[in-house]
Amino acid sequence: MESMTLGQYELVYNAFSFSIATMGAATLFFWLSRDTIAPQYRAALVISGLVTFIAAYHYWRIFGSWSAAFVVDAAAGTVAPSGEKFNDAYRYVDWLLTVPLLLVELIIVMGLSRAATISKGVRLGVLAALMVALGYPGEIATDMSTRLMWGALSMIPFLFILFELFVGLRGSIKSQPEEARGLVNLAIWVTVLSWSFYPVVYFAPLLFGAGNANIATMTGDAAMIVQVGYTIADIVAKAGFGVLIFMIASAKSQEWRNKNGAESHA
Amino acid sequence: MESMTLGQYELVYNAFSFSIATMGAATLFFWLSRDTIAPQYRAALVISGLVTFIAAYHYWRIFGSWSAAFVVDAAAGTVAPSGEKFNDAYRYVDWLLTVPLLLVELIIVMGLSRAATISKGVRLGVLAALMVALGYPGEIATDMSTRLMWGALSMIPFLFILFELFVGLRGSIKSQPEEARGLVNLAIWVTVLSWSFYPVVYFAPLLFGAGNANIATMTGDAAMIVQVGYTIADIVAKAGFGVLIFMIASAKSQEWRNKNGAESHA
Repeated sequence: MESMTLGQYELVYNAFSFSIATMGAATLFFWLSRDTIAPQYRAALVISGLVTFIAAYHYWRIFGSWSAAFVVDAAAGTVAPSGEKFNDAYRYVDWLLTVPLLLVELIIVMGLSRAATISKGVRLGVLAALMVALGYPGEIATDMSTRLMWGALSMIPFLFILFELFVGLRGSIKSQPEEARGLVNLAIWVTVLSWSFYPVVYFAPLLFGAGNANIATMTGDAAMIVQVGYTIADIVAKAGFGVLIFMIASAKSQEWRNKNGAESHA
Repeated sequence: MESMTLGQYELVYNAFSFSIATMGAATLFFWLSRDTIAPQYRAALVISGLVTFIAAYHYWRIFGSWSAAFVVDAAAGTVAPSGEKFNDAYRYVDWLLTVPLLLVELIIVMGLSRAATISKGVRLGVLAALMVALGYPGEIATDMSTRLMWGALSMIPFLFILFELFVGLRGSIKSQPEEARGLVNLAIWVTVLSWSFYPVVYFAPLLFGAGNANIATMTGDAAMIVQVGYTIADIVAKAGFGVLIFMIASAKSQEWRNKNGAESHA
């Protein structure tokens, strides 16, 4: 990395640590809240926790890799590359696992038929994995045009996912109970908006480090924007989205208990 | 290892980290989903989780051993042996524990009689342990003919296992409930196909590094194919197979609840 200041290095370092704490705490919240939810929606909370668990593991690795890649001179207030390589692939490995699971969460909490749950889950899961896999060659490319090309290819499955969410899933909002409709609509919007943030970060080096798209050669500013940007997007799209899934499951559980005359637990 | 490129080293490194995350998440999924399953099939989920837990532990060790065996020069983009030895034995220790357990999972979820469960479990467990133990001397051998000989010996118990699965276990598919028959058949096929992948990887160095069967002396290509190949096979045979076991247990639980007039939980 070229010309990184101590302030830039520390902002990224602290953002990674913040993410480990947030993802870890979110995991425990989802799993500990499971038995307050009606049985048919518990799988959505289990999976929300798996997503943040996998993310916590990867931020632990990313944090370690970032620390190892630099040597800080506290007296001089400077930071220099250590010679060890910062491993950017952890993010893609993480997304390959978590992005399909995020879509499965949303589908489960909507409570569609078994057949619709499986067919939509498989279709969206495959599209999501394809989207992540197509982005990676551009992320590690050293020239801007390769980054642009793979980024553009990755947008194709992304647009199919958007179509599926807005046309396929929003169509079944009217089958949701009154109290959950607004929340399900919000969850779809949070997915779309938080996911749209990733391509913005992906293409940011075009603006901040023209000619240097790779993490190893990009400027300190570009590296900081990419790392902090992805971290914020991950927290919103995983922990924040999971809380929304919990609220939907909670509202629908209340409605289910009222209907079944069961004693209220919430 | 001879002539390994940084790209080869990193692909293996990231595959190991991916496996840690996948096995860890799968473990928690199996254990957290246990209470959604009828009591008689819960042991199958406990054991599915033990298999992926043991695998997560061993991939943690393998990842550490791999990192320690090489020195990366980030600036030059090269990788060189550090002098520390990559420990290939972790895989065999893992298989010695997990492969018999995988067969036990399958037998439990089939819901045979107690006597049949025990006799089939012991027979298949011993055959599986024998298969793994016979493969190891060939894996650490430095010449190709020794690798071939032990590999061939290891195939003998493997063929007995195939016979037991196709003739012994498939015969009892008709005693399975309608909804589970296809899944049980699929589970047997996934076992056979994913396990067949191991001998393919085992014999791959014959094609990619003729004369250099041992990890310490094989070419970068051969080492990469063996390590990534075994990792993919492990993920399919353990985490993927476990999800299939969960689906069978889930379908059979539903059928059991309907029959017993118990209130539906799914």
